[in-house]
Amino acid sequence: MFLTRSEYDRGVNTFSPEGRLFQVEYAIEAIKLGSTAVGVATKEGVILAVEKRITSPLLEPRSIEKVMEIDEHIGCAMSGLTADARTLIDHARAETQSHRFTYNEPMTVESCTQSLCDLALRFGEDGEDSMSRPFGVALLIAGWDESGPCLYHTDPSGTFVKYEAKAIGSGSEGAQSSLQEHYNKDLTLKEGETLALSTLKQVMEEKVTATNVDIAIVAPKFHLLTDEEIQEVIDRL
Amino acid sequence: MFLTRSEYDRGVNTFSPEGRLFQVEYAIEAIKLGSTAVGVATKEGVILAVEKRITSPLLEPRSIEKVMEIDEHIGCAMSGLTADARTLIDHARAETQSHRFTYNEPMTVESCTQSLCDLALRFGEDGEDSMSRPFGVALLIAGWDESGPCLYHTDPSGTFVKYEAKAIGSGSEGAQSSLQEHYNKDLTLKEGETLALSTLKQVMEEKVTATNVDIAIVAPKFHLLTDEEIQEVIDRL
Amino acid sequence: MFLTRSEYDRGVNTFSPEGRLFQVEYAIEAIKLGSTAVGVATKEGVILAVEKRITSPLLEPRSIEKVMEIDEHIGCAMSGLTADARTLIDHARAETQSHRFTYNEPMTVESCTQSLCDLALRFGEDGEDSMSRPFGVALLIAGWDESGPCLYHTDPSGTFVKYEAKAIGSGSEGAQSSLQEHYNKDLTLKEGETLALSTLKQVMEEKVTATNVDIAIVAPKFHLLTDEEIQEVIDRL
Amino acid sequence: MFLTRSEYDRGVNTFSPEGRLFQVEYAIEAIKLGSTAVGVATKEGVILAVEKRITSPLLEPRSIEKVMEIDEHIGCAMSGLTADARTLIDHARAETQSHRFTYNEPMTVESCTQSLCDLALRFGEDGEDSMSRPFGVALLIAGWDESGPCLYHTDPSGTFVKYEAKAIGSGSEGAQSSLQEHYNKDLTLKEGETLALSTLKQVMEEKVTATNVDIAIVAPKFHLLTDEEIQEVIDRL
Amino acid sequence: MFLTRSEYDRGVNTFSPEGRLFQVEYAIEAIKLGSTAVGVATKEGVILAVEKRITSPLLEPRSIEKVMEIDEHIGCAMSGLTADARTLIDHARAETQSHRFTYNEPMTVESCTQSLCDLALRFGEDGEDSMSRPFGVALLIAGWDESGPCLYHTDPSGTFVKYEAKAIGSGSEGAQSSLQEHYNKDLTLKEGETLALSTLKQVMEEKVTATNVDIAIVAPKFHLLTDEEIQEVIDRL
Amino acid sequence: MFLTRSEYDRGVNTFSPEGRLFQVEYAIEAIKLGSTAVGVATKEGVILAVEKRITSPLLEPRSIEKVMEIDEHIGCAMSGLTADARTLIDHARAETQSHRFTYNEPMTVESCTQSLCDLALRFGEDGEDSMSRPFGVALLIAGWDESGPCLYHTDPSGTFVKYEAKAIGSGSEGAQSSLQEHYNKDLTLKEGETLALSTLKQVMEEKVTATNVDIAIVAPKFHLLTDEEIQEVIDRL
Amino acid sequence: MFLTRSEYDRGVNTFSPEGRLFQVEYAIEAIKLGSTAVGVATKEGVILAVEKRITSPLLEPRSIEKVMEIDEHIGCAMSGLTADARTLIDHARAETQSHRFTYNEPMTVESCTQSLCDLALRFGEDGEDSMSRPFGVALLIAGWDESGPCLYHTDPSGTFVKYEAKAIGSGSEGAQSSLQEHYNKDLTLKEGETLALSTLKQVMEEKVTATNVDIAIVAPKFHLLTDEEIQEVIDRL
Repeated sequence: MFLTRSEYDRGVNTFSPEGRLFQVEYAIEAIKLGSTAVGVATKEGVILAVEKRITSPLLEPRSIEKVMEIDEHIGCAMSGLTADARTLIDHARAETQSHRFTYNEPMTVESCTQSLCDLALRFGEDGEDSMSRPFGVALLIAGWDESGPCLYHTDPSGTFVKYEAKAIGSGSEGAQSSLQEHYNKDLTLKEGETLALSTLKQVMEEKVTATNVDIAIVAPKFHLLTDEEIQEVIDRL
Repeated sequence: MFLTRSEYDRGVNTFSPEGRLFQVEYAIEAIKLGSTAVGVATKEGVILAVEKRITSPLLEPRSIEKVMEIDEHIGCAMSGLTADARTLIDHARAETQSHRFTYNEPMTVESCTQSLCDLALRFGEDGEDSMSRPFGVALLIAGWDESGPCLYHTDPSGTFVKYEAKAIGSGSEGAQSSLQEHYNKDLTLKEGETLALSTLKQVMEEKVTATNVDIAIVAPKFHLLTDEEIQEVIDRL
Repeated sequence: MFLTRSEYDRGVNTFSPEGRLFQVEYAIEAIKLGSTAVGVATKEGVILAVEKRITSPLLEPRSIEKVMEIDEHIGCAMSGLTADARTLIDHARAETQSHRFTYNEPMTVESCTQSLCDLALRFGEDGEDSMSRPFGVALLIAGWDESGPCLYHTDPSGTFVKYEAKAIGSGSEGAQSSLQEHYNKDLTLKEGETLALSTLKQVMEEKVTATNVDIAIVAPKFHLLTDEEIQEVIDRL
Repeated sequence: MFLTRSEYDRGVNTFSPEGRLFQVEYAIEAIKLGSTAVGVATKEGVILAVEKRITSPLLEPRSIEKVMEIDEHIGCAMSGLTADARTLIDHARAETQSHRFTYNEPMTVESCTQSLCDLALRFGEDGEDSMSRPFGVALLIAGWDESGPCLYHTDPSGTFVKYEAKAIGSGSEGAQSSLQEHYNKDLTLKEGETLALSTLKQVMEEKVTATNVDIAIVAPKFHLLTDEEIQEVIDRL
Repeated sequence: MFLTRSEYDRGVNTFSPEGRLFQVEYAIEAIKLGSTAVGVATKEGVILAVEKRITSPLLEPRSIEKVMEIDEHIGCAMSGLTADARTLIDHARAETQSHRFTYNEPMTVESCTQSLCDLALRFGEDGEDSMSRPFGVALLIAGWDESGPCLYHTDPSGTFVKYEAKAIGSGSEGAQSSLQEHYNKDLTLKEGETLALSTLKQVMEEKVTATNVDIAIVAPKFHLLTDEEIQEVIDRL
Repeated sequence: MFLTRSEYDRGVNTFSPEGRLFQVEYAIEAIKLGSTAVGVATKEGVILAVEKRITSPLLEPRSIEKVMEIDEHIGCAMSGLTADARTLIDHARAETQSHRFTYNEPMTVESCTQSLCDLALRFGEDGEDSMSRPFGVALLIAGWDESGPCLYHTDPSGTFVKYEAKAIGSGSEGAQSSLQEHYNKDLTLKEGETLALSTLKQVMEEKVTATNVDIAIVAPKFHLLTDEEIQEVIDRL
Repeated sequence: MFLTRSEYDRGVNTFSPEGRLFQVEYAIEAIKLGSTAVGVATKEGVILAVEKRITSPLLEPRSIEKVMEIDEHIGCAMSGLTADARTLIDHARAETQSHRFTYNEPMTVESCTQSLCDLALRFGEDGEDSMSRPFGVALLIAGWDESGPCLYHTDPSGTFVKYEAKAIGSGSEGAQSSLQEHYNKDLTLKEGETLALSTLKQVMEEKVTATNVDIAIVAPKFHLLTDEEIQEVIDRL
């Protein structure tokens, strides 16, 4: 009586008979093709570590930005379509700046995350920043506000959840198991860095170097580690 | 002479030959995939209890918000697409605040519910807040106004009905039978809490803990129970 | 040479080779799935009686509003999609209030009905209140103006006709035969109430109680009967 | 080399290889499903006579308006979709009123007819009053202006032609033959009434009564005959 | 490798692999279904002669307007969809009036023709007067400006060309051969009238009468011949 | 794995799997159906020569404008859909006039050509002048600005290239070979005229006369040759 | 359970079940049909070298602009659809000029590149400059700002990455291998020119001449090499 699944999956915003939105599910698939990113929240700060795929030796690794600052107390790591992520992050930067200007205080990390998810949900509508398809990107949002350090995960459906540690991208399954095994709430920032990078190392095909990963911390300000700082973490592994 | 059912079900707003709107029916299916929520209205207040699906031990359970405050005298529990629910609830919050500002008194629970359903019906139209598909979410709206405590149920078709006790989500069938068997109008608030949680317990696969359920009451103000308060209810079972 | 019927019926506003508009005809089908409603016009006033489907013992019957006041001299009963009816009725309420404000006199029942039908015809167009599909609801509009009591029937095609007595909904066929047999122009209001309810009783599967029917009269003001008043009518059967 | 006819007929405004617009032709079919209407122009005035289909004995025949006044010197009879006709007639009423207000004189019958046809042609466009499909209605427009009495016929293609006598609707074929046989230019108004009604009588399945036909004259003002006046015409047959 | 022709012909504005626009070609077909019209340019003025299809003896022939005045020095004859022609002519009338008002001199015939063709080309676009399909009408535009008398032909593709003598409509093929045989540049106006009508006579199925043809001249003003004047031309044949 | 070519070619602006835009390629085909045009740039000026298809002896050859002035120092020859060309040329005329008004100097030929191509590229977008399909026309743009005489070729893809000599239209292949064989940079204007016309003569089916070709020069002003001047060139062949 | 790949690839902005956007991938294919371009960044400046396809000896090679200046410190080379590139470059020129005007300093090369990619991502949306399909062009952007010389690569997905040396277009695969083999960071500008041209030479079918390649440098200002300067580089090979 029903059509096969495939008949429902091209309408950008159409329910299948089982109540599923396939275009959103397919956008989630786009993330599984992306590079792996790992986030770890500790009491001393949040760590984001991402894999960078260096497809050519002539490519400038620093120009592959997979970890970006949103505000001085919020950063984010992405997996999936890079250009989609940039649209979301530009939106979040404008929101946080506007909040600072209006209220003279930093936006909370949750409000910032919710604002990103509201934009993600609005696909298929007219309006500034909104897209004609779901955003094909997942984000790990690391921040520090009056509630302390925190880590959020968002996906193309506009859903966000808070995690102590979370992996996204093509290696997320193995990375998440590893995080569950080794994470505990009492990690120091340094131990968190080590955990994030060792997790990433397990799922990367290439050998980890200061060039093909990026690490950022929010503790309590966003800081993107230099090559030397990354090398230090590698040396600690 | 007619096409099979499946040919009519992708037009977002098209009648089938039998006069059915399949996209709305499929959105209702989306709710059957959602977590279970239970509402119980007593003379002393209304109780909302929801299951939280903790898919990873590293996930922060408190960040899964399945019960939310709309106004100080109205709360709601959801099942289905979380991001859709957020849009509806943000709309309701704006409506109730605007009503307070304009009339200097709280909105009635029925008016608030009707405003939510009007938005739900407007899918496929242009306009602020409206969507290009039906909202894939059911809500239980608990409130207390000059008529006393009350519990409403809304579905994606924009229909709302008042209930003494109602369950929604994947376990709703079993939960509703259980509610019909054990509910009576003379329950105290505490007995209502026990009924709501014991009903939820029957349909949950996991053992009930203070972590994987949320309970809220409106009596006469909205209050989200703390972990300790939930544990107290669990201990009473 | 022609396609089969089914190929023409998904265009919301497309003629078939025989000159038919199938989406409007399918919307009319939606009404045949609805609960039965009966209207009877007498010289002393107009009676509306509707069946309420109580799907759960925990449901609050009073919250199923199948008979609603439009203005103090006009009421209406509906069958079909409840949420669609609400949009039409809200529109009519605004129109009658606006008429009172502008002309300082009540709107005639026919003008009110015509205004509802104009909205029903405008589906597929842009604009406030208008829908992207036909309204899936039929209305019985009871009123009393300077021409005395009157009863109108509207359907999704935007057509309206005046009746002395009319039934709509799933039991309308049997109910209409019964009305034709027993109606006469000299009925008193009380006899009209009895006729309306006895007609409804014949086509309802459940036993008639003060809970599962609603009765309203316009004589000359709209009045929704209380449970006691309904019980009185039941007792008269 | 060509597709079969049926492939071209669902595009609302698309030519077939032979240069035909099928949706307009199908709208013309809608009129063949409608009740019959007859118009007769005499030197003393124009007569419109229409069949009314009384589908239920409880229906108020006077509420089936198939003949309507546009301005005091113009009336019209319709066949096809009643609600579509109402939109056209409301448009014409506004145009004639606006003309009186601007120029302080009545609109000519031809200008009024042209204005109706311009609206009929604009289907598929945005704009006030315009429709997303052709109007499924034919009109006979009777009027009296400085050129004397006249009768126009309009169809869904937006074409209008002046006739001495014309029939539309399901019985139009037989009625038109009858008109051609019996019409002459020297008919008095009374003879015209008789011709119109006797023509209608031939194609109606039901016996003609003062209830199931409507007759209007423009001589030189629009006048809808009362039941007694209709009975007089019936008696003259 | 290519689809058959028929697959490309329903897109209103889509090229086929051979670079053809089928909807425009089909609109040109619509003209071949239309009544025949003939234009003849002489040194003393331009003649337009058209066939009128009198489908019923009760129809008022004068109300079939196939020749119309655009400005006092420009007239036009049409073949194809009458209502489409009216839209084009109304547009041209507004343009010529506006030109007179702005420049205090008559518009040239070529500018007027170009303005008609610009509108014809704009189908499928939004905007006043423009249509969602090609205009299904051909025009013969006769005029007299500072360059003397002239005759233009326009078709649905928005192309216009100047002719000494041209026939359009269902009988255009035979009529054009006849014109080529008998036309010469030294015709007087009277001889031109005779040529136009004799050409029309050859391709008309009915006997030519003062009733079933219309003749207009621009010499140098537009003048629609009266029945007596047409009879005179018939008598000259 | 891929569909056949034909499945991609109806989307007006859709890439095929090989990265091709078929609708643009088909529009280029439309030009191959058009009449031939030849352009030759010499040091003394640029020559444009075009074939005119005289489909009827009664047609006024001068009204077939295949060579048109854009500004006093720029002219253009066209092949393909004439009405499309007119839209492009009207746009260019407005641009060059506006440039003169704003900067008090003539527009360069390249800027004028670029402005035409920008419009050609904007098909499928909303906006003044833009079309819902590619423009089905190629242009040869001849001009003389501060860089001296020059000749540009534009096609439906919005690409333009400068040529010393170029042929377009149905005979372009043979004409281009001939140009390559006989062109040299030291041609005088007269020799260029001879080359252009002799090239055209080779690919035309009809005998070349002063009637069925048009020749224009830009040297340094645009000048359309009179019949006598064309005859002179013919005589020189 | 899934459709074949081909069913997903015509929706301009639709995810396939594997999370891919086929129209963007097909636009990337368009580049593989384009002429080859090579970019090399040295400490002394950045070199862009492109192949020009001279399809006719009468074509003016200088009018094929495959390397263009954006601002005095930024240039770019393109491969793919030339007209698409022009739109992107015009946008970038406006952005860089506007930046100079607003901030009184040159835009950084990265900001300029990001602004191009933002436009590339906005296809399918309304708005100035945006397109209804992906831009079918890749760019190599060479610039020199306060960070020194740099080279960026952009593709139709709106992604940009910084390279030391990069090839695009039909010969990109072979060219990129060659670049990887011979590039080192200590190249002088002259050596860079030699590397760029020798790389291009390897993948070009035609013999390299001053006519069929273009070379530009940014060192630190944009300079397009003259024929003599190109010949000098050729002589150095």
